[in-house]
Amino acid sequence: MPSPYESLLAEIREIGQLESVESLLDWDLETHMPPNGLKARAEQLSVMARLAHDRKTSPQLGELLSKLNGDSSDPAEATNIRETRRIYDRAVKVPVELVGRIASVSAIAKGAWGKARQDSAFDAFAPHLSELLELKREVADRVGHDGDRYDALLSEFEPGATTDEVAGVFGALRGPLSEFVRQLTESSTKPDPSVLARRFPQAAQEQLARILAAAIGFDFKSGRLDVSTHPFCSGSTPHDVRLTTRYDERFFSAAIFGTLHEAGHGVYEQGLDANHMFTPMGSAVSLGIHESQSRMWENMIGRSRAFWEHFYPQCQAAFRESLTDVSLDGFVAAINTVQPSLIRVEADEVTYNLHIILRFELERDMIAERLSVTDIPEMWNTKIKELLGITPNNDAEGCLQDIHWSMGTFGYFPTYALGNLYAAQFLAAARRAVPDLTERIARGDLTSLLDWLRTNIYRHGQRYRANELVEVVTGQPLSIEPFMSYLRERFSPFYGL
Amino acid sequence: MPSPYESLLAEIREIGQLESVESLLDWDLETHMPPNGLKARAEQLSVMARLAHDRKTSPQLGELLSKLNGDSSDPAEATNIRETRRIYDRAVKVPVELVGRIASVSAIAKGAWGKARQDSAFDAFAPHLSELLELKREVADRVGHDGDRYDALLSEFEPGATTDEVAGVFGALRGPLSEFVRQLTESSTKPDPSVLARRFPQAAQEQLARILAAAIGFDFKSGRLDVSTHPFCSGSTPHDVRLTTRYDERFFSAAIFGTLHEAGHGVYEQGLDANHMFTPMGSAVSLGIHESQSRMWENMIGRSRAFWEHFYPQCQAAFRESLTDVSLDGFVAAINTVQPSLIRVEADEVTYNLHIILRFELERDMIAERLSVTDIPEMWNTKIKELLGITPNNDAEGCLQDIHWSMGTFGYFPTYALGNLYAAQFLAAARRAVPDLTERIARGDLTSLLDWLRTNIYRHGQRYRANELVEVVTGQPLSIEPFMSYLRERFSPFYGL
Repeated sequence: MPSPYESLLAEIREIGQLESVESLLDWDLETHMPPNGLKARAEQLSVMARLAHDRKTSPQLGELLSKLNGDSSDPAEATNIRETRRIYDRAVKVPVELVGRIASVSAIAKGAWGKARQDSAFDAFAPHLSELLELKREVADRVGHDGDRYDALLSEFEPGATTDEVAGVFGALRGPLSEFVRQLTESSTKPDPSVLARRFPQAAQEQLARILAAAIGFDFKSGRLDVSTHPFCSGSTPHDVRLTTRYDERFFSAAIFGTLHEAGHGVYEQGLDANHMFTPMGSAVSLGIHESQSRMWENMIGRSRAFWEHFYPQCQAAFRESLTDVSLDGFVAAINTVQPSLIRVEADEVTYNLHIILRFELERDMIAERLSVTDIPEMWNTKIKELLGITPNNDAEGCLQDIHWSMGTFGYFPTYALGNLYAAQFLAAARRAVPDLTERIARGDLTSLLDWLRTNIYRHGQRYRANELVEVVTGQPLSIEPFMSYLRERFSPFYGL
Repeated sequence: MPSPYESLLAEIREIGQLESVESLLDWDLETHMPPNGLKARAEQLSVMARLAHDRKTSPQLGELLSKLNGDSSDPAEATNIRETRRIYDRAVKVPVELVGRIASVSAIAKGAWGKARQDSAFDAFAPHLSELLELKREVADRVGHDGDRYDALLSEFEPGATTDEVAGVFGALRGPLSEFVRQLTESSTKPDPSVLARRFPQAAQEQLARILAAAIGFDFKSGRLDVSTHPFCSGSTPHDVRLTTRYDERFFSAAIFGTLHEAGHGVYEQGLDANHMFTPMGSAVSLGIHESQSRMWENMIGRSRAFWEHFYPQCQAAFRESLTDVSLDGFVAAINTVQPSLIRVEADEVTYNLHIILRFELERDMIAERLSVTDIPEMWNTKIKELLGITPNNDAEGCLQDIHWSMGTFGYFPTYALGNLYAAQFLAAARRAVPDLTERIARGDLTSLLDWLRTNIYRHGQRYRANELVEVVTGQPLSIEPFMSYLRERFSPFYGL
């Protein structure tokens, strides 16, 4: 007779297995599925999603959870019970009809958004957005919150995070960061990124991307690298993590830094504890913590001078035609160019955060009914001028640029900037623990950092929630200081500040 | 309120969807999965298999089937009810414990077989084989049969086929076929296959394989071609059919005829009616009928002179280095070489059938307890001498060569030779319907044959069982005559007979 916890474990492992199958179906859809396979794939995905949902909301799971009401002294048990309860509570509170209604409204909204963006006509999208906001407010009310509906949406992606906390750090960040961007923008000294637009043959890009991914610790015996239109990392288990990238022969950064970004997600997934496979204890904490790893490896490490001290000779050899006349310093400056721009997905790592703060402030106020949908274009343009000093020519390059709101996705954007803040604070802690980290990286030793991350972050799975993890690992609550220090230290020299 | 048939349809569609997901997991395992992913994949496959099995044996399905006891006048409905009943009956009659017991016994037996084959020591495998035979007899008794247990095993792969019928056609075939092989073997005129062992660069092989697969009608918008150790065709829906092949630069035939073989399976899958996707009416009839298509396209069409009249110039251009001095006639003779050999998987299309007859006779008698396990090596050697005129040096190249019996797979081998018989009889009918078929093929028109097959076979799904389909399509019950005529016509010229 299995104990209630053993029964719970069997249930959640099966949910995890079903979701991992769903994730493989998605990966295949993006990478290998023949074009005509879409209709059947949609049916397969839908049946898998339904099976997982049925299990997440089963009375059996509810009964097991109510039997497991006491605290467990075992951290893995406690984690699995706590997070399963969170998933169950959320799933039973949102009726399947409401989920279905959001899916069908957003399917139409996505179409309307595409058309509206094409025509740069926000008005055509506005009623769909209003409808989705109404539905997501209903979700928030059903999930429950302490007054701030946005909390309930945020915690889908960043469990435990609150609107107030996010508003606190973003509020602290927006002024100093805008000011720093202004200084960079106004400086007469600037890196020249034009060398990155020379010719970089795809085969050499792929080879270098694989070398760099392996160098930061991505294990190709437990993972793959493929091509897809929108790069992603799909990790079903620590032993099977799939990265994708895309190649642009006229742009060095897309595949190289794209792969480092996804490989950053990948080493996190591969560093999870396989003994807890398919359970919360063997899963990543949150989107924000995940993003902290992709951004740390891509930007903080992958664009550092130390990193390229070791790898630039190989890189130059791979792209003789385009990089022979480019010095290490010139190359490192080029890959650290900051330039305010209108489109989020093309933004550099500094200005990117201001794009996120803008979206957070708008969607928080929309959900709270403090901002009316009709006022969005004007508010968008006001804020982007204030934060980045630029003005969109039209809504297509302004408030209509992202697909997310048309999918009813609110509470997701903040995780990107949170990721940068987490990353800087983690990295500062790693530097305290490994004082000669920069020298090690310059020698091509990336294992020291990886080991520290594995020990302090990856292997814990969901034992700690994001904010708690930050405190456990760094000894401090989340703050903007490590990130601002990192930015100043990294970018000031390139801009003569 | 859905009708009982609509409810049944929803159930069987979901079973089909789950099985199609399982098939994608298998495809990925064989083609793209990173090596360390195996353990988690086994868990995913096991949960998917269990979910499908639960549905196939659910009381709900049983109730629906009992409500649908009358005949339906709609052929699709009648087919789906009949075949779902067959699947349900079989699944509920074999307890899940027995299935599990066979899986665990065969896991050990497979290991023992591998070792026994290595040591060429049948005795070490014999007790495992005895145990599996006992378990499969129990399966047969539980499934039910009219006296011949082998019927129940055979019908897992060839629904409705009986031991007597198979024994009838194989009994008729063994004498004339052995005699024909003897004539070929003793002839002083023989094709020279040595040109096929020249150098054939992999990239050119892949290009030609794709051209030929597309030429016989395989639609790459609804399918793929990848590489795997053991080639297969995995068809989850008509819109997503995945072939694999393997390349050997020192052997022309492996990838080229291997791909034609799998593409033959593939055009069958792609020709099924997508309106009946995930149901028996949209599924292939049986392994035998499936094999009739792979073997027709690979051998009867793919090794014909007419086919290469059109494609040999392209083939020669692709392999200039190796085929410039080889005439069309020399090439066609080379790919139609017949040579008795000990190993089934290396056998040509003529002698292959004798390997199958041998296995059928042995496994039928083992299941019927007319042949004791200890007598197998001797009986094997006696029969292969009788059928092919050759004698194995040891059991490894005799009765231990195949993995199948160690997996408890009995009743499967016959489908290969049945496939050849079906194929010849179908092709003879197609030739009556399209009298200038050979000329059309020589002009590169393979659509005429494909259209005929789609209309007469593929689109019917499981409307007819194999034997019935043969009669409906060809007007005659299955007989050996079309196959023997085909063989004589095809091979006699190359051997001066």
